[in-house]
Amino acid sequence: MKKLALNFIGKVLIGFSFIFLFPELVCLINKEPLHPFIIPQIISIVLGYLLYKIQTDNRNFYVKDGFFIVSVSWILVSLIGALPLYFTGCRYIDALFEIISGFTTTGATIFKDVEVLNKSILFWRSFSHFIGGMGVLAFVMAVIPLGTKDKSMHLLKAEMPGPRVEKLVPSIKKTLFYLFFIYFGLTISEFILLMIGGLPFFDALLISFGTAGTGGFSVLNTSIGSYSVFSKIVVAVFMFLFGVNFNIYFLIIMKDLKNAFHSEELRVYIGLFITSFIIVFISTYQLFDNIGEALLQSGFHVSSLMTSTGYNIGDINIYPTNCRVLMLLLMLISACAGSTCGGFKISRLIICFKDIRRSIRNIIFPNRVESIMFEGQKVNEATIKSTNTFLFLYAIIIVIILYVVSLDGFSFETTLNSVICTFANVGLCFHIKDFSMFSDLSKIVLSMGMLLGRLEIFPVLSLFIDFKNR
Amino acid sequence: MKKLALNFIGKVLIGFSFIFLFPELVCLINKEPLHPFIIPQIISIVLGYLLYKIQTDNRNFYVKDGFFIVSVSWILVSLIGALPLYFTGCRYIDALFEIISGFTTTGATIFKDVEVLNKSILFWRSFSHFIGGMGVLAFVMAVIPLGTKDKSMHLLKAEMPGPRVEKLVPSIKKTLFYLFFIYFGLTISEFILLMIGGLPFFDALLISFGTAGTGGFSVLNTSIGSYSVFSKIVVAVFMFLFGVNFNIYFLIIMKDLKNAFHSEELRVYIGLFITSFIIVFISTYQLFDNIGEALLQSGFHVSSLMTSTGYNIGDINIYPTNCRVLMLLLMLISACAGSTCGGFKISRLIICFKDIRRSIRNIIFPNRVESIMFEGQKVNEATIKSTNTFLFLYAIIIVIILYVVSLDGFSFETTLNSVICTFANVGLCFHIKDFSMFSDLSKIVLSMGMLLGRLEIFPVLSLFIDFKNR
Repeated sequence: MKKLALNFIGKVLIGFSFIFLFPELVCLINKEPLHPFIIPQIISIVLGYLLYKIQTDNRNFYVKDGFFIVSVSWILVSLIGALPLYFTGCRYIDALFEIISGFTTTGATIFKDVEVLNKSILFWRSFSHFIGGMGVLAFVMAVIPLGTKDKSMHLLKAEMPGPRVEKLVPSIKKTLFYLFFIYFGLTISEFILLMIGGLPFFDALLISFGTAGTGGFSVLNTSIGSYSVFSKIVVAVFMFLFGVNFNIYFLIIMKDLKNAFHSEELRVYIGLFITSFIIVFISTYQLFDNIGEALLQSGFHVSSLMTSTGYNIGDINIYPTNCRVLMLLLMLISACAGSTCGGFKISRLIICFKDIRRSIRNIIFPNRVESIMFEGQKVNEATIKSTNTFLFLYAIIIVIILYVVSLDGFSFETTLNSVICTFANVGLCFHIKDFSMFSDLSKIVLSMGMLLGRLEIFPVLSLFIDFKNR
Repeated sequence: MKKLALNFIGKVLIGFSFIFLFPELVCLINKEPLHPFIIPQIISIVLGYLLYKIQTDNRNFYVKDGFFIVSVSWILVSLIGALPLYFTGCRYIDALFEIISGFTTTGATIFKDVEVLNKSILFWRSFSHFIGGMGVLAFVMAVIPLGTKDKSMHLLKAEMPGPRVEKLVPSIKKTLFYLFFIYFGLTISEFILLMIGGLPFFDALLISFGTAGTGGFSVLNTSIGSYSVFSKIVVAVFMFLFGVNFNIYFLIIMKDLKNAFHSEELRVYIGLFITSFIIVFISTYQLFDNIGEALLQSGFHVSSLMTSTGYNIGDINIYPTNCRVLMLLLMLISACAGSTCGGFKISRLIICFKDIRRSIRNIIFPNRVESIMFEGQKVNEATIKSTNTFLFLYAIIIVIILYVVSLDGFSFETTLNSVICTFANVGLCFHIKDFSMFSDLSKIVLSMGMLLGRLEIFPVLSLFIDFKNR
């Protein structure tokens, strides 16, 4: 049974080896050494082939197998994906932190100065956001025979952010096609607009990758701060757009505008954005020379933190305490399910709130029986239950990581920020310019946090529970 | 129907008026002015009598009526109980903060210097801990006719900390008698030991009150720091003892030692204490002159914060970040249900953890059906549900208060500490010596937090939901 999973992981690694062709192209153009990419590529092919050779007649496929495939794939891809950075002079632990930050679309960097990096390495970092953005889903799905619907759905369940995957079209293959179409379409649109905004080709491409995955790795040390105002607005808008549930775009493509704009999650997302924008603007406008700049800074940073992207256009450390509290919250909640964002997700929050309201009513009026409705549908109790469990696990993991990182002895706020900004896959936070100052233990634990956050805890956790039950 | 509740509240206020006799006695002994206590006493009697006059034939009694009585009683008692401080020169908002801190057994003070206060005021502060300790329960129950068992149980449900009340004896009146017996017994034992430890009569009495309620108001500005080592150990031990579920003592009195020492909650409590003690000791022993002092400081402060008492015997601000994280956690969790502690309570935590373990298993093996066992009994699903709801509400309330207090512009850590130390009814925290520095808005919101924390959210919340449903 587990053999089937290993066979799948083999396919993933073979698929992954093709990804290296892109940075290799960048190497050729910029006359940079090729071996940092060719060696991991070969490792990926060989290991992938060895795993692929494992054949089995048992075609039964359970949720935990999906979890196993997704978790192990992410870990192997990260271990191999870190090699290009290692071969260009990084310590392996740092390289691993950086690439996990890339694939999980966190964008927290280990580098004090990114401008000294090779073009191919810069490309690799940002490209990892683009790949990670839609999850391993993108290439896992591409290599799995899609005949048996159940298999794909199990993988999808583990991979897609958010508490539920809406089956919008009967065929999973077609759904995937549309998701790609939207993802690529938005990325290309941003790329073109950034070119119009005066960015060099290379910068425009990498920033688009970083926005698409809601990652946040940048090309310059100033993040987005050195580009034109037009470009800043473009990035802010696209960060926001990538925070929307992709099902909404799907509905728009299907010309079902009524359902698209009646989405509860979308409304809460927009409402939360506008409220936060106004609060941050009011709390900070006197810090800037003019209202325009204050509006841009507030809008950009709320968009960046809320969508877990992590680009910045100025120093966020000047923000007062109430903005810090608000922004930490936005980071924890993040944007819509079914998007490339990290965090807890708005749809989960809505379900939790509705569940609370129901519970309180139940305590006071014990005889009432109520269902919870979300997006016009009854939410089944198992989903509510797992959402509650997710919340509690979310808190526990933050606490555990917080304690480990606190051993480094940085201030409480710095420690808390480092944990939330990695676990919620944001990458930008108060007091921390880069993560080089942390101990190796903290780097490892924070890396694990990024993976747990990105894979939404359960798949990774099931690796350990599975073993215990044997 | 609501008339019956008002009638009950009337009885509570009449009962409350007798409480003033004690500080009045202190006034007479120390030749201090009597009017600060006589005026609120008269208000209490008059208002109580007016409410008591409201009679009704409807004897139906629901959970929400219990919630209403408890919440409104606490609020009225606080509003009236603040008057003695107001009449001796305090601003009313400060007086209200101080006395809510007293009745909720928080122990967070508004006074920069407590040594200049009148003896009667010092007595009133500490005595409010003693009264609050067992909750309004103590006097609410005393004035309610105990004939109809249901009524009392409703009130008890709202009042007793923890997710469940064990009916250890068939009669609620007898249970109450034993609870009082244990509470007074422990308090008197501590008082005698403190006298032996060399404390003046007045100090020994007030410190015993403060420990009994797990409050933390002290007589000296140095809290317990100026007393003898023996006295410090006595206080540390008794803080720990008051953090134990009173049902355990009850079982011991009943000579059911087997069940007493097999309590899961007790074991986790002891385990958590020892683990924290060791961690704090290892992290801080090099800060002190000798191992003995380091042991005393670690043990005392872990005991103090974990039981939400809040006494100190030295500067806790010297503790490194990992101890701060740990202590903040201990404050949030606190000790056993069925004790006078604040916080989330260990029994709830155990239930949450067991529920999570079950949920994860359910996600991976969907066909399994499991019950959750706690203290040898099956926990019903409604309790699990309300425990989860409580957790989520707990988090939401912290977030809301955090945001309001953050508007004062203190550092993030200070703000967070102030919120947790009041909401979890601890009273001692990092960076804050007293609460006079906060704005009136923050004081009001933090006071509400103390009440919400003490009454375990639901009763207070039901005040508002009730109105909405009409």
